[in-house]
Amino acid sequence: MSKVVVITGVPGSGKTTVVRQALEVLKQQGIEYEVVNYGDVMLELMRERLGVTHRDDMRKIDTGVYREIQREAGKKIADIAKQKRVIVDTHCFVKKPEGYYPGLPLWVLQELRPDVLVLVEATPQEIARRRTLDADRKRDQELEQSIQEHQEFNRMVAMAYSAISGAAVRIVTNHDDRLNEAVEQMVSVLR
Amino acid sequence: MSKVVVITGVPGSGKTTVVRQALEVLKQQGIEYEVVNYGDVMLELMRERLGVTHRDDMRKIDTGVYREIQREAGKKIADIAKQKRVIVDTHCFVKKPEGYYPGLPLWVLQELRPDVLVLVEATPQEIARRRTLDADRKRDQELEQSIQEHQEFNRMVAMAYSAISGAAVRIVTNHDDRLNEAVEQMVSVLR
Amino acid sequence: MSKVVVITGVPGSGKTTVVRQALEVLKQQGIEYEVVNYGDVMLELMRERLGVTHRDDMRKIDTGVYREIQREAGKKIADIAKQKRVIVDTHCFVKKPEGYYPGLPLWVLQELRPDVLVLVEATPQEIARRRTLDADRKRDQELEQSIQEHQEFNRMVAMAYSAISGAAVRIVTNHDDRLNEAVEQMVSVLR
Repeated sequence: MSKVVVITGVPGSGKTTVVRQALEVLKQQGIEYEVVNYGDVMLELMRERLGVTHRDDMRKIDTGVYREIQREAGKKIADIAKQKRVIVDTHCFVKKPEGYYPGLPLWVLQELRPDVLVLVEATPQEIARRRTLDADRKRDQELEQSIQEHQEFNRMVAMAYSAISGAAVRIVTNHDDRLNEAVEQMVSVLR
Repeated sequence: MSKVVVITGVPGSGKTTVVRQALEVLKQQGIEYEVVNYGDVMLELMRERLGVTHRDDMRKIDTGVYREIQREAGKKIADIAKQKRVIVDTHCFVKKPEGYYPGLPLWVLQELRPDVLVLVEATPQEIARRRTLDADRKRDQELEQSIQEHQEFNRMVAMAYSAISGAAVRIVTNHDDRLNEAVEQMVSVLR
Repeated sequence: MSKVVVITGVPGSGKTTVVRQALEVLKQQGIEYEVVNYGDVMLELMRERLGVTHRDDMRKIDTGVYREIQREAGKKIADIAKQKRVIVDTHCFVKKPEGYYPGLPLWVLQELRPDVLVLVEATPQEIARRRTLDADRKRDQELEQSIQEHQEFNRMVAMAYSAISGAAVRIVTNHDDRLNEAVEQMVSVLR
């Protein structure tokens, strides 16, 4: 049974850890996933077509060409999913200086056809603490507010992705000292 | 004049009561609606095509077949709406263990072509109290938080349904002891 | 280089002032935009086709015809954008008695193909104060709540517009006595 599960989460959400541990549990149950990073697939396509080798150079590409490669990456991942279960590691929104860009616009969703969209979340306080070691209170508060906004926008656009694609939306909460619960939830989505 | 009004609301929102009373008021003004339950139309189609007779068995159906029947149900309701005004009783999101599924994905909206999407809401406290009779404070707080999240997700996805279909979005608030106001608002939408 | 930037904001957000001042700054840098009001383009098309001359009469038009003209307006603006950079002055949602109508439904976005969607915002308190001169506390609180809801819905539907069109979303905050910061942010989007 093939399946496409998109997994997102802001830096500090602990997405990578939760996925890794969930995959270890599932392996013992005989369930395996191929983990694909959306940005890596795009970079690979850009290397082949345009000779782009650095992630930073991806931004300079013309919008029309960028979107076409974004669409093709979705198609390529959907092709992998014909053979096996796939986890797509990506972002709901890509934050750039000029604004938030949608990671899964309509033309990508039409190729990718995800079954589930997972948002790995934690409280803004937890994420801010995981990101910073210093004790600058003021910067922390600004950071927390920015994280809260980012997570809210991710939820909003995830609901739109769901409406466009029919994929289920699932929130996996990864609180401090409760990684086990997050892993359990992730296992239940992937099983 | 034909019209498709989609009406949604979490259990305990009082959706059914508000609609029933609004229809009584409208009947006296010579305005009638056919009320169609989206899930019932889908179940009927599944009975004809697949021999499915219980709602619980609907979940076991293959995703591709499920979505096709979901689309056909939208078409069937749109056909009814050619003759008369129709209220579609459904959910913004269908909550399942693995996540929230969109009740009105793009391919359903393209068939159904709703004019208005109504969300019947109340405060999480009011809805939790309507659902439970016991006085377990802790469980109540968890329930309230879950209701708040559910209502927020419904709003978010309703905005996406609106962007996809062009339908107007309307919130009808049904507070305790103010049913009359909710009915009045519903009448103004349906008139 | 052509570019379509959609700029929205509730009345009292200061959208017009921020845009005007940003355009003055950009003019000195040799960057010019054509500012197009979406409603004006629609009214012009309705005048030509249907003889409609007043904005208030636009509401009485049959939904099918209205949507077709809404789509054509998007096409007309996209045509202008082939020659020069365009700012589209419009609303995320058009608030009418029966509900909120989406300003940029799917069929409009497919014609318009925006690059960026800007939401000019301020706190509900600031916007309420800018709108009212009287000191009626109770009405102010109701107004603030209605403004907050309106801004939240605008954010939600903007995320859906982004998912449908691929446009970046950008929030420009225009706080009291900090117009300069808002103008700076707007300049960075438009440059």
